[in-house]
Amino acid sequence: MKTAYTPLTDADFDRAFPNSRRVYIDGELGVRVPMREIALSGGEPPLQVYDTSGPRVADLQAGLPPLREPWIEGRGDTEVVRMGAMRPVRRARSGRGVTQLAYARRGEITHEMAFVAAREGLPVEFVRSEVARGRAIIPSNINHPELEPMIIGRNFLVKINANIGNSAIGSSISEEVDKLRWATLWGADTVMDLSTGRDIPQTREWILRNSPVPIGTVPIYEALEKVGGIPEELTWEIYRDTLIEQAEQGVDYFTVHAGVLLRYIPLTSRRVTGIVSRGGSIMAKWCLAHHQENFLYTHFREICEIMRAYDVAFSLGDGLRPGSIADANDEAQFAELRTQGELTRIAWEYDVQVMNEGPGHVPMHLIRENMDRQLEWCDEAPFYTLGPLTTDIAPGYDHITSAIGAAMIGWYGTAMLCYVTPKEHLGLPNREDVKAGVIAYKIAAHAADLAKGHPRAQAWDDAISKARFEFRWEDQFNLSLDPVTARAFHDETLPAGGAKLAHFCSMCGPKFCSMEITQQIREIAAASGVSVEEARRRGLSQKAEEFRTTSR
Amino acid sequence: MKTAYTPLTDADFDRAFPNSRRVYIDGELGVRVPMREIALSGGEPPLQVYDTSGPRVADLQAGLPPLREPWIEGRGDTEVVRMGAMRPVRRARSGRGVTQLAYARRGEITHEMAFVAAREGLPVEFVRSEVARGRAIIPSNINHPELEPMIIGRNFLVKINANIGNSAIGSSISEEVDKLRWATLWGADTVMDLSTGRDIPQTREWILRNSPVPIGTVPIYEALEKVGGIPEELTWEIYRDTLIEQAEQGVDYFTVHAGVLLRYIPLTSRRVTGIVSRGGSIMAKWCLAHHQENFLYTHFREICEIMRAYDVAFSLGDGLRPGSIADANDEAQFAELRTQGELTRIAWEYDVQVMNEGPGHVPMHLIRENMDRQLEWCDEAPFYTLGPLTTDIAPGYDHITSAIGAAMIGWYGTAMLCYVTPKEHLGLPNREDVKAGVIAYKIAAHAADLAKGHPRAQAWDDAISKARFEFRWEDQFNLSLDPVTARAFHDETLPAGGAKLAHFCSMCGPKFCSMEITQQIREIAAASGVSVEEARRRGLSQKAEEFRTTSR
Repeated sequence: MKTAYTPLTDADFDRAFPNSRRVYIDGELGVRVPMREIALSGGEPPLQVYDTSGPRVADLQAGLPPLREPWIEGRGDTEVVRMGAMRPVRRARSGRGVTQLAYARRGEITHEMAFVAAREGLPVEFVRSEVARGRAIIPSNINHPELEPMIIGRNFLVKINANIGNSAIGSSISEEVDKLRWATLWGADTVMDLSTGRDIPQTREWILRNSPVPIGTVPIYEALEKVGGIPEELTWEIYRDTLIEQAEQGVDYFTVHAGVLLRYIPLTSRRVTGIVSRGGSIMAKWCLAHHQENFLYTHFREICEIMRAYDVAFSLGDGLRPGSIADANDEAQFAELRTQGELTRIAWEYDVQVMNEGPGHVPMHLIRENMDRQLEWCDEAPFYTLGPLTTDIAPGYDHITSAIGAAMIGWYGTAMLCYVTPKEHLGLPNREDVKAGVIAYKIAAHAADLAKGHPRAQAWDDAISKARFEFRWEDQFNLSLDPVTARAFHDETLPAGGAKLAHFCSMCGPKFCSMEITQQIREIAAASGVSVEEARRRGLSQKAEEFRTTSR
Repeated sequence: MKTAYTPLTDADFDRAFPNSRRVYIDGELGVRVPMREIALSGGEPPLQVYDTSGPRVADLQAGLPPLREPWIEGRGDTEVVRMGAMRPVRRARSGRGVTQLAYARRGEITHEMAFVAAREGLPVEFVRSEVARGRAIIPSNINHPELEPMIIGRNFLVKINANIGNSAIGSSISEEVDKLRWATLWGADTVMDLSTGRDIPQTREWILRNSPVPIGTVPIYEALEKVGGIPEELTWEIYRDTLIEQAEQGVDYFTVHAGVLLRYIPLTSRRVTGIVSRGGSIMAKWCLAHHQENFLYTHFREICEIMRAYDVAFSLGDGLRPGSIADANDEAQFAELRTQGELTRIAWEYDVQVMNEGPGHVPMHLIRENMDRQLEWCDEAPFYTLGPLTTDIAPGYDHITSAIGAAMIGWYGTAMLCYVTPKEHLGLPNREDVKAGVIAYKIAAHAADLAKGHPRAQAWDDAISKARFEFRWEDQFNLSLDPVTARAFHDETLPAGGAKLAHFCSMCGPKFCSMEITQQIREIAAASGVSVEEARRRGLSQKAEEFRTTSR
């Protein structure tokens, strides 16, 4: 069914970012925040960029160091209920609000807030106020101490999520852990474990213990496994137990399709592609089979009670999202979005952090409406979209069809973009697909950050543009999202070492380089003692002649 | 310097689009327009899509059949001036207006207009009026009879251009012809030959004689070769002779950097990346060296006289386009754009067709301003942009950074998008890079067509969405922009032939397929004699039970 799996090695990680090293910057409350520092040549200062790759894993069995453990223990508002597979399992002491939203509303600055403030370069009080307002979330289950906290909200850097997970068809546990590490190496800010096959709990345990980023899941998948894959057999009790098990393991956010109401299902009947969300179709089938309202909706307050005890955040699912261009922005989709808004406000009553999932497949001219309605109906809770794909005619290239939509909706205000790999609609992503998806989405998120005017985003572009103009080829490679590929592409045409110092490239050859000519223009103007502008003003034909004779 | 070149074979072309064949639809004046017809299963009608691949080339030396020869001869307004390398060379009889703009303004419908009308599915009178208004162009040199005419304008399908061409560093003539055929196979609507090395005229002759699409060039490159690569040595006379030689060969549009005025050059001095257009930097250096106004500007009316005699269209160059995010939408860029508008109106005085080139590197929030100003200042002449790239931090992936900007500006009204390959800024594109660039830009152009509400664009998406929902895997592959890649990605996980008939895929496995569940929901509802909606309204728990028992 699939090719043999070759584990990643330390060398795979070492090679990824030449001339970069992990450094730490100090934040409030003594937090130390990792950044990737790229050393440059030509007297340029190094550039520090956001780093999601986490500490190097020494031993997968032991997991990452529990960075947050002293913070969580120090707050004294949780208790150990039992030992888990690898760590003690905590929950909130009775009556204590241990979510970041609860702390923020009480005006308390947590270590997690201090960490994300330093990471984003913003005041910690701003972080607190955005969390308190519900406009940003810091997914950070108290049972995921390995986490390096991050924030999702439209007044922060746009984040990206990578999906991993085995299915009934393929892939092993260690392969999934490698995918996690690989995805975060290239820049995934969160990872969703969408496993649907065997060994779901064990896979998740390994992933959580080795993950520096928040882990999200769709608990209905595991619940469905427990009932043999038959949606009609699902019960609230089975689902509730699954939630608690996953919360105890440390999952940071749950996708919950509580907005798929019985009365919305017929609205999908005239669609070209019906219901395409797995969770959505499972709940739709359950609702129709029982002719009852979705139990995730009817038990929503109980779900909030569970999630608040661990600080698991909601990712309110969009089970009726469009699955094709033809179905975008229809009645079914927007009916559910309104209900997501209602559920958002209920979750906030319980101090549970919330984001809202969005589409999917949307042509460009209908993207903005998604953002505007979500902001209005869901009271500015963070929006978390899958793409959207802007056309369906390019299977095999859906990382591109969707990066277009993702960049646009990110600019409009979406806080996190769920990646799409080239294999979407076709097969399970392998390692190269995961990388291709993450990089396409780093591009989309960064393009959105630039369009939103983020100063750190602009600084990164300026650094690479300057390196390009000054023919600092090595710096240009090292500043790119994928240095090794950039260098390899250059070397295909000009492999000689000297070409890395050359004031031209293979596109135009030595005589035609426009940037080289521009530099000559500036140098000649400087050497002749006048600026180009002055030369023009004075209209000195003598200077023109000087230029002519010296610039050959 | 580079790997050995392997020529393309017929098999490379045969394999590209399984289940497709070239068909012809009839237009007015007896024209027969090629389309690619994709046969589908399940009783679905075949889908006809726009086809740029041209007739299969039997013999590169003989070139393609001269489709337009009887049209051009039949008009009786041109004369043969001498024999060219492979064909007679024509020019307009004295005083005759032989451009498509001239005919359109006189109210005459040409075969070329009839051809594009059938190709776009629009009335021929609409085509004529758009050309007459200057809002669309049909680049079609009377010396390029092999051309299958196409139209560039914002009320038509968005087009894409692929650049090919050798440089001093690499590639051979037959390699360039193969790149042309390869680019048009995947969907390039026009091709620019940007050769700067040796053998420029001979390479171009081969390309033109084998090209079913309009060919564009930047004549200053060849002129510069003639003066040993020293910009200061360029003269109007050398340039003029080059224009005539290329017009006689059959080049359909010329990039002319006539808007790079002496007084604009100092405006680039504080830029991060100065001047990045090759043509722009050549003219800037000439202007500064001579301290004279750009000779392309001072001789612009003579250029118009030459181009009208062959119906060569202008692609007014943007020599001062930004080369980095930091330089987007600056004074230099917009100063030149205003001059492009002035030049557009002058060209129209001579009945010469015109489009305007645009950037380049632009963050998303500044893209719209480019389109709005171009429409206003250049009187709605077609806009032809290079990308734009929406960030500079991803060399190696600039087909993606720029597809985002290209899709957006295409939606806003840009008529043609110049592709960017993954090798941009790094090296010369090879065959796979050309394909990657063309497909990324077909995606961008198609996404723009969808957003503009083009009915043919929507029909293509609907056909593939329906195939996906109905598990017609083969149809889904065959309807995609790159069927072979789509199929290969599917087969990586599920290679068995039976999987092509399966009602699931490897992403979710057999039990979890949302689309399969949706179909079950519909079938059960239909079998039970009520619609899902009716079942809901009546609240029949019996029906629910029926559903439950039959849907296992």
